[in-house]
Amino acid sequence: MTLTQLSSESSPASNLEPLAAQVMDWCDQLATLSAMPDGIHRFYLTPEHQACNKQVAIWMRQASMQTHIDAAGNLIGRYASDDPQAKTLIIGSHLDTIPNAGRYDGILGVLLPIAIIGQLARSNTKLPFHIDVIGFGDEEGIRFGATLLGSRAVAGTWQPAWWQLQDSDGIKLNQAFEHFGLSPTDVGQAAYDAEQLLAYLEVHIEQGPVLEQQDLAVGIVSAIAGARRFQINIQGHAGHAGTVPMTMRQDALLGASEAILLIEHTAKEFGVVATVGQIECGPGAVNVIPGNVTFSLDIRSVDDGVRDAAVTKLQQRISTLCEQRQLTNQWRQIHQAPAVKCAPWLIDLQRQTMASLHQPTLELMSGAGHDAMALADITDIAMYFVRCKGGISHHPAESVTHADVAAALVALQATIVTLGQAVPAAHLES
Amino acid sequence: MTLTQLSSESSPASNLEPLAAQVMDWCDQLATLSAMPDGIHRFYLTPEHQACNKQVAIWMRQASMQTHIDAAGNLIGRYASDDPQAKTLIIGSHLDTIPNAGRYDGILGVLLPIAIIGQLARSNTKLPFHIDVIGFGDEEGIRFGATLLGSRAVAGTWQPAWWQLQDSDGIKLNQAFEHFGLSPTDVGQAAYDAEQLLAYLEVHIEQGPVLEQQDLAVGIVSAIAGARRFQINIQGHAGHAGTVPMTMRQDALLGASEAILLIEHTAKEFGVVATVGQIECGPGAVNVIPGNVTFSLDIRSVDDGVRDAAVTKLQQRISTLCEQRQLTNQWRQIHQAPAVKCAPWLIDLQRQTMASLHQPTLELMSGAGHDAMALADITDIAMYFVRCKGGISHHPAESVTHADVAAALVALQATIVTLGQAVPAAHLES
Repeated sequence: MTLTQLSSESSPASNLEPLAAQVMDWCDQLATLSAMPDGIHRFYLTPEHQACNKQVAIWMRQASMQTHIDAAGNLIGRYASDDPQAKTLIIGSHLDTIPNAGRYDGILGVLLPIAIIGQLARSNTKLPFHIDVIGFGDEEGIRFGATLLGSRAVAGTWQPAWWQLQDSDGIKLNQAFEHFGLSPTDVGQAAYDAEQLLAYLEVHIEQGPVLEQQDLAVGIVSAIAGARRFQINIQGHAGHAGTVPMTMRQDALLGASEAILLIEHTAKEFGVVATVGQIECGPGAVNVIPGNVTFSLDIRSVDDGVRDAAVTKLQQRISTLCEQRQLTNQWRQIHQAPAVKCAPWLIDLQRQTMASLHQPTLELMSGAGHDAMALADITDIAMYFVRCKGGISHHPAESVTHADVAAALVALQATIVTLGQAVPAAHLES
Repeated sequence: MTLTQLSSESSPASNLEPLAAQVMDWCDQLATLSAMPDGIHRFYLTPEHQACNKQVAIWMRQASMQTHIDAAGNLIGRYASDDPQAKTLIIGSHLDTIPNAGRYDGILGVLLPIAIIGQLARSNTKLPFHIDVIGFGDEEGIRFGATLLGSRAVAGTWQPAWWQLQDSDGIKLNQAFEHFGLSPTDVGQAAYDAEQLLAYLEVHIEQGPVLEQQDLAVGIVSAIAGARRFQINIQGHAGHAGTVPMTMRQDALLGASEAILLIEHTAKEFGVVATVGQIECGPGAVNVIPGNVTFSLDIRSVDDGVRDAAVTKLQQRISTLCEQRQLTNQWRQIHQAPAVKCAPWLIDLQRQTMASLHQPTLELMSGAGHDAMALADITDIAMYFVRCKGGISHHPAESVTHADVAAALVALQATIVTLGQAVPAAHLES
C-alpha cells in the first residue's frame, strides 16, 4: 500500500476503533504489573519494570518490530525502513509510574504507536524513515529523585553524578543497573546520534483540564513550560494570641497570606502558572501569633523570560508587603529548568494533519515535564495531548475514553503518513 | 500605725526600692526550683511544686503570716485582721510554670503581696479585713491539659471528671493528689465561702506590649477576654501545578489565604483580637495545587457579644469568598470561654489609688486567662498588670525591671490601704 492510499483510507476514526479497544486492553494489562497489590506502582529498574518491558516487547514483535533493551533499561522496538540509510523517527513515552498511579500517564504514548505500526505492517506499508518506539524506563524520577533518566540516556545527557543517587532502601543507581542486568559503564551506548534522527514525537494524556473544557479529544503541544521552584521564608515576631493588639503584630502568616494572593495575581498578570503547594507555620500553636512561615513556589511558563520577569516582580511585591508589615523575606531557589519549544515545522505539519482530518486544532502548552524535554537536546520534538477526564492524573482515577484513544490513533497515524509525504528526500537520509 | 499614716508615708516608690530588690531576688531563687537543669519547668503536684510551696511558705511566715497547704495543693498565707469576723481579701496568682518558662509569670503576683504584708507587719499595721495570699498550684494547665485547677478548687468549681485526666506519663490526677500527700475526696475543703470574701486582687505581668508602648509601669485591667477557638477546613480540588490554568483552579490555600486576611480585617473592624496560629495544607507537595487546607482561629474580646458578632460576620465573609472560588468551608468549635469583667467598684478604687499616687491610669484588657477568671465565680475581682520587656512571656527572656516592681509594690500597697479606708464597715463583716 502506498502512503497516499493509506492517507485516504485511514482517516475515519471508526476504522481504528478495534485498535483503540486493543490499546485500552493493553493499558489494563500493564496496570497489573505493579509492586502494589491494589494500585499501580512501577519504578525504574525493578522486577515490575522488567516484566513490563517483557510484555510490551511481545506486543512490539507482534507488530513486526525488532526489539531490544538499551544500555539504560529502555525498551526499543524498531519498524525499519527498507532504506538502511534512512533517518529515524522516535515515538516514545515512559513505562514507569508514580506510586498509586493512573494507567495512562506515559503508557498510552508507548502503546499507541505500537498499535499503529501493527496496522502499517499488516497493510505492508513502507515508510521512508525508521520508526523507533521507545518505552522509557524512568521519567517520573521517583525512585532515585532525578527525573527523565531513561530519556536522558537516549539523548546522551546522562550525568555521572547520578550513579551515587540512592533509593529509599539505600540501593545506589549503579547497583540497580547491575541488578537489572545492565553495565553502568555501557550507559553511553544508549545515546542516539543526532545526525541519524528525523524527529521525536510523543503522545501523552494532558494531565490538565483544557481539552475537556474546549470539548476536544486531541491537542497540539506548543511548548513544555520551564519551571523554577523556591522556598520562601517570612520572618516576623511570635507573640501571645490574646495579649498583642492587632495593630502591634508582626504576624508572619498574615504576610505569607498576602504573598500567596500576590502570587496568584501576578501569575495571571504575566500569563504564567504559579502554585504554592506547601506551607509551614511556626511556632504552630493555636494561641501563638506565627513568627515564622515557609512556603514553596512553583512557577512555570513556556517563555523563560516572561517567567523570570514574573519572579522579579513577585520578589519586589513581596518585599514591599513585608516592609509594610515589618517582616523580612528570604528566597531560596531549589529547582530551575528552561522551557522547551516544540519545532515550528512539526507544529505546522500537525496543523495540516488535523486540518486534513477535518479536526479543529488547538495549541496548548504543557505545564508538566515530559521525555520530549530530554530529546529536545538532540532532535526536533513534537507532542500531542489526549483529553483525560477532569484533568485528573497521578491518581487511580485517571481516565481516558475509548473514543479519544481512537481519535489519538487517527491523529498519530495521519501524522506519520503526512511526515512520510511532506519531508523532502534530502531530509530523510542521514 | 494607722492606715492614714501609712497612706501618706508609703507613696514614694523610693521607700519600697529595697522591697523590690527582695522580690527580684525571690524570683531568682524560685527559678532554680525546676525539673529542668537549665530553665524553669514547674508543674502541678510535682516535687518542684512541693519545694516551691515550702520555700514561699518560709517567706510568708517571715512576713508574719500563718501558712497552710489547702486540699488542692495551693499554698495559703494569712495576714489576719484583729476582727475574727472580718471578711477576707484574697491576693494571689500561680506558682506553676510552662516548660522553659520565664521567672515572673504568676510568681511575681504571689511574691509582691508577701513583701507588702511583711512591711505592714513590721509597722504593726492593722487592717479591717484578713488577707489570704494564695500561690495557686496550677494555672497553666500543662500537666493535665485543663487550666486553672488550683484556682477552681478555691472557687469551688472543681469538676469530678478531672480525676481521670492523665499526665504524659499516664499518671492520673487522683494519683498525683495522693503522691503529693493530698486526698482527692477532700478537694471540696479548698473552696472558700463566697459570703466571707471581700474581693480577689491579682497582680500579673502584662505578657503583651501595651504598657511598654504607653511608657507605663503599671496598668489597671478592665476585663479578661473570652476566647473561642475553631478549626476551619477549606476544601477545593487538588491538581497538577503545571497543567491546570490559573483561571480553572479550586485552590484551597488561596481561599485560606484570603480567609486569613479577612480574619485580620474583621478583627480590627470589631475591635477584637483574632489569630491564625496553625495551618496545614494537603496534599502538600511542591508541584500539586492544594485541595484541602485546615487552619485554627483563636478570637477574643472582653465583650462576648462583640466577639460572637465578629465570628458570625467572619463565617459570612469566608463563605462568600469560598463560593466565589468554588470552595467549601467547615467550622468546628474546639473551645469557648466567656469574658470576665473586673468589678467596677474595684476599678474605681484602683483609679483613685493611682490618682493619689500621681500616676497616670491606663485601663487595658487581658487577652490571656488568669486565676482571677476562676475567682470571679465567687467574688469581685480586680487586677493590675506590670510592664514586661517587649511584651515577651512564656519564654526565658521574660523580663521586668526593678523600678517597675517597685511601682507595682507602691500600687498594691496603696490599693490595700485605700480599700481599708474606703470600704464601708458593713461591707467588711461577713
